[in-house]
Amino acid sequence: MTETDRDITGFLYEVKARLDRRLDELLPPAGCYPTRVHECMRYSILDGGKRIRPALMAGVAEALGAPSDDLLPAMCAVEMIHVCSLILDDLPSMDDAQMRHGRRANHLVYGDATAILASIALLNQAYAVLSDSCKDQDATRKAVIDQTAKMVGTEGMIAGQIVDLESGGKPVDENTLEYIESHKTGALIMGAVRIAALLSRAKRVELDALTGYARNVGVAYQISDDILHLTHKPQELGKVAHRDEAAVNYARVHGIEASRRSLERFTADAVDALKDFDRCADRLRSLARYLADRAS
Amino acid sequence: MTETDRDITGFLYEVKARLDRRLDELLPPAGCYPTRVHECMRYSILDGGKRIRPALMAGVAEALGAPSDDLLPAMCAVEMIHVCSLILDDLPSMDDAQMRHGRRANHLVYGDATAILASIALLNQAYAVLSDSCKDQDATRKAVIDQTAKMVGTEGMIAGQIVDLESGGKPVDENTLEYIESHKTGALIMGAVRIAALLSRAKRVELDALTGYARNVGVAYQISDDILHLTHKPQELGKVAHRDEAAVNYARVHGIEASRRSLERFTADAVDALKDFDRCADRLRSLARYLADRAS
Repeated sequence: MTETDRDITGFLYEVKARLDRRLDELLPPAGCYPTRVHECMRYSILDGGKRIRPALMAGVAEALGAPSDDLLPAMCAVEMIHVCSLILDDLPSMDDAQMRHGRRANHLVYGDATAILASIALLNQAYAVLSDSCKDQDATRKAVIDQTAKMVGTEGMIAGQIVDLESGGKPVDENTLEYIESHKTGALIMGAVRIAALLSRAKRVELDALTGYARNVGVAYQISDDILHLTHKPQELGKVAHRDEAAVNYARVHGIEASRRSLERFTADAVDALKDFDRCADRLRSLARYLADRAS
Repeated sequence: MTETDRDITGFLYEVKARLDRRLDELLPPAGCYPTRVHECMRYSILDGGKRIRPALMAGVAEALGAPSDDLLPAMCAVEMIHVCSLILDDLPSMDDAQMRHGRRANHLVYGDATAILASIALLNQAYAVLSDSCKDQDATRKAVIDQTAKMVGTEGMIAGQIVDLESGGKPVDENTLEYIESHKTGALIMGAVRIAALLSRAKRVELDALTGYARNVGVAYQISDDILHLTHKPQELGKVAHRDEAAVNYARVHGIEASRRSLERFTADAVDALKDFDRCADRLRSLARYLADRAS
């Protein structure tokens, strides 16, 4: 483990601890009526995810010299949206997954109906939290809501999931693969970084640079995930074999060695996008490398 | 048919025509990639619903002397949220309904996964449209987003649906019945009226009066719906028998005659809540009576 790895591991640990405390405060208490849907929301969101997207957002605040505490509610909102998508992905009508983060999938514990309603409640609450995060900055509120809608909707995550489902585990061409990955995973990483930049009052040129960073990190993240899927047993990833195993996978299409080279290239491009930032952006640079190293 | 009925029928027809045109513009074109999810969204929202909630919103604009054209996008957004809830209600894991508005339920045409994603896309787009409706009024935007989140979330429609599902078609006590109906149906009517009032720059006292109107209309609407369910064949309502027939029903708990008396009382209270408004609120008064008359 290098010095950077140790730093980033500590940073991720600290982000996760702060995030989990704040999520606990922002979510309706499990004992609050109707209790079952609140328990169901908490089951999936307080389950030990790595909080990569919130960590990227905290990195953006650092890069822009903004207090990352102010960003904490928005980091929670993005995680709510991420978990909303995970609960839905695992449904029998979608990936039909049994396990998530080493525990039974939400719908197997709470039933499909409650899982669906809890996931929508998470998205819905994310909007309230994001709007609230903007305090009295109207231009920011409008931009953040627009960015969120674009990231989630049929130009974003939903588009990726639909096209993934339509591929039905069959081999897809490179364009479709790129479409699915850039929308299903890339859109949320892009949205998280841009929302963090908007809330940290980025200048236009900074927003553009961070967008370039996010685009490359998004692709790199998905490639590294796909490599991990091919090189690790499902149990090691906290999953059991399911339709995902037959799903669209960059590393299956391009081969593992070529994928590792692409991963390096996208990671280098992510770091390069930050060339006009000073040492404040080191955390974002390290995060990009850390995410790539998972699959090496 | 009385003069008022004729007026209201014409008004509803006109609202529906304007709304359907604007929805067509606001929704992604059916031919836009990924096409299937866009077709799926359009299938359910352009299917001939009566547009009661948008009509109430147009009535609020009239009562407050605001131009109802400005409110049209928000009326579309509320209808998107309504249709989101209908698609989800009909899923096999929820009411398992086969028909809606005389056509096959969305999930039977597009499959459960696409139906779920389209319904979430509708909710998501509703947020974008509502935020956009607020133009440059920041206090309004914050209030509208908060109101929407409350109306949809686990204090609102989702709470009603969860408790309804948990009742599992078994008889429920009066408190539970009131909880389900006020949340499942009442929350959206309340939210629609309050969003319309906020966007029409209602004064605090006007907002309070309209809230009282909406609360009573919401209960009356559900009672009249429940009476219709007991007094009409499912085919006449565009439905086929399904779990809904065994579901929570005010008229089954209280009897049809007592329910009609309650319906009259809540309708009178709705009209009474508008006592400080002049003739501008006649449309809202007529709408309340029209909704009650459906079940007489």
